Amino acid sequence: MTITGATRLLAIIGDPVAPLRSPAFFNAAFARMGRDTAFVAFQIPAGALERSWPAFEAMKNLDGIVITMPHKEAVMPLLADLGPTARLTHSVNTIRRRPDGAFEGDMFDGEGFRDGLERAGHPVRGKRILQVGCGAAGTAIACALARAGVADLTIHDSAAARQAALAALLRTHFPRTHVVLGPPDPRGFDIVVNATPLGLQPGDPTSIDPTLLVSSQVVADVIPNPEVTPLIAAARAIGCATTTGRDMHEGQARLAAAYLGIEDWNG
Amino acid sequence: MTITGATRLLAIIGDPVAPLRSPAFFNAAFARMGRDTAFVAFQIPAGALERSWPAFEAMKNLDGIVITMPHKEAVMPLLADLGPTARLTHSVNTIRRRPDGAFEGDMFDGEGFRDGLERAGHPVRGKRILQVGCGAAGTAIACALARAGVADLTIHDSAAARQAALAALLRTHFPRTHVVLGPPDPRGFDIVVNATPLGLQPGDPTSIDPTLLVSSQVVADVIPNPEVTPLIAAARAIGCATTTGRDMHEGQARLAAAYLGIEDWNG
Repeated sequence: MTITGATRLLAIIGDPVAPLRSPAFFNAAFARMGRDTAFVAFQIPAGALERSWPAFEAMKNLDGIVITMPHKEAVMPLLADLGPTARLTHSVNTIRRRPDGAFEGDMFDGEGFRDGLERAGHPVRGKRILQVGCGAAGTAIACALARAGVADLTIHDSAAARQAALAALLRTHFPRTHVVLGPPDPRGFDIVVNATPLGLQPGDPTSIDPTLLVSSQVVADVIPNPEVTPLIAAARAIGCATTTGRDMHEGQARLAAAYLGIEDWNG
Repeated sequence: MTITGATRLLAIIGDPVAPLRSPAFFNAAFARMGRDTAFVAFQIPAGALERSWPAFEAMKNLDGIVITMPHKEAVMPLLADLGPTARLTHSVNTIRRRPDGAFEGDMFDGEGFRDGLERAGHPVRGKRILQVGCGAAGTAIACALARAGVADLTIHDSAAARQAALAALLRTHFPRTHVVLGPPDPRGFDIVVNATPLGLQPGDPTSIDPTLLVSSQVVADVIPNPEVTPLIAAARAIGCATTTGRDMHEGQARLAAAYLGIEDWNG
């Protein structure tokens, strides 16, 4: 695809941007579609989003924005409206123009994770799930799992306050889900989720002891890069089915594309 | 070229942007070079540049900006420094980052025109030139021609005030150039320049009566689209050598690329 003056823009706003996979992923999809849209990264540092926002509002050929670290919370007061999951999780990852030109946003990180897991053949309704990590990603994922009707959701975080806050959120909004605060012990669960950053850096320990896994369990990790974390590698060695941060990312992209009105998305 | 999160950005800022040729032209050059830079258009309407500027300053992966209509003058107070031609012509078309991250700009429209003319085999030093049109583009072009040492520069504009202002500017800064305020009569000139917008719209009259041209004259037009204006078509029919808005545009791009530090430019 050749970018011309007539090419429409989508942007991912974050810092850093060099490691982001969304631009290549979206642009490959647009090339397959023959769609004259370019997906570019705007590297805006923490603290500079608010003063930068008028440009994105003014930019008439910018049709939507994906927001990533460190702006997922900071963007909220800059938007004209928020979708239900953004209100629930207090963060935004996708923004579109309303017909009046103003921006509205919603959060698809958790639903993207669930979508990636289910498309890989692992439905979550009625399942017993252990999720380790209750930060921003973990909050979005736990809400998506609860909404999808998991039977039992055990959450763990090394920061007790985060763990308690997520439990309170889930119990308020998803009273039918049985929420347990437990240790990161995977024994007896159908699906085990790493929603911590562990695995991003070389030499990281695993958030869950992989020697306690058995081959009938599904192990899911949120880390996109490396795609095969030590946890995923150990789980595969045991014979577990696995889904990775790439599956989650593809789910997020699919749902973001739908929200942005890209109807012929086939990525 | 695939745009990824690591791709560096250059932008052209204007409104409208769909007809602009710079994105396709620069991106084709970057593809030939194997340079991981994307040149995209930011459609910012008149009046929105100042409030948009903090975003462009904050955007760490944005290395330079080309400025076009309607912002060439409005951008001046937003820059940390101006080059000599920008100061002279009171307009800016190219902006780069200084080592401290602040933006500085200069104006290459006029030099781009001269460069296009001279690369087409028509040196201007010592020549007698008629230029019709004393607006922003005409001012930049007349200054570039005067700087290059034309012998005699006759200028015309249907707005007498614009014509007088440009004559005063030229006489102040280029006292060696013989500046004449004259009618748009091409007889006796070596090179005849249309620097008015006439030719942009279908059915426009020509700014210069082409029946007065002779085949030994060079006729240059600034209109990029259509490339062959009625004036250029008539001049070619008579046998005149011609240069077009495309030649000017390629000259502008060459000089902007050099200012932006793109050393392997071969466009």
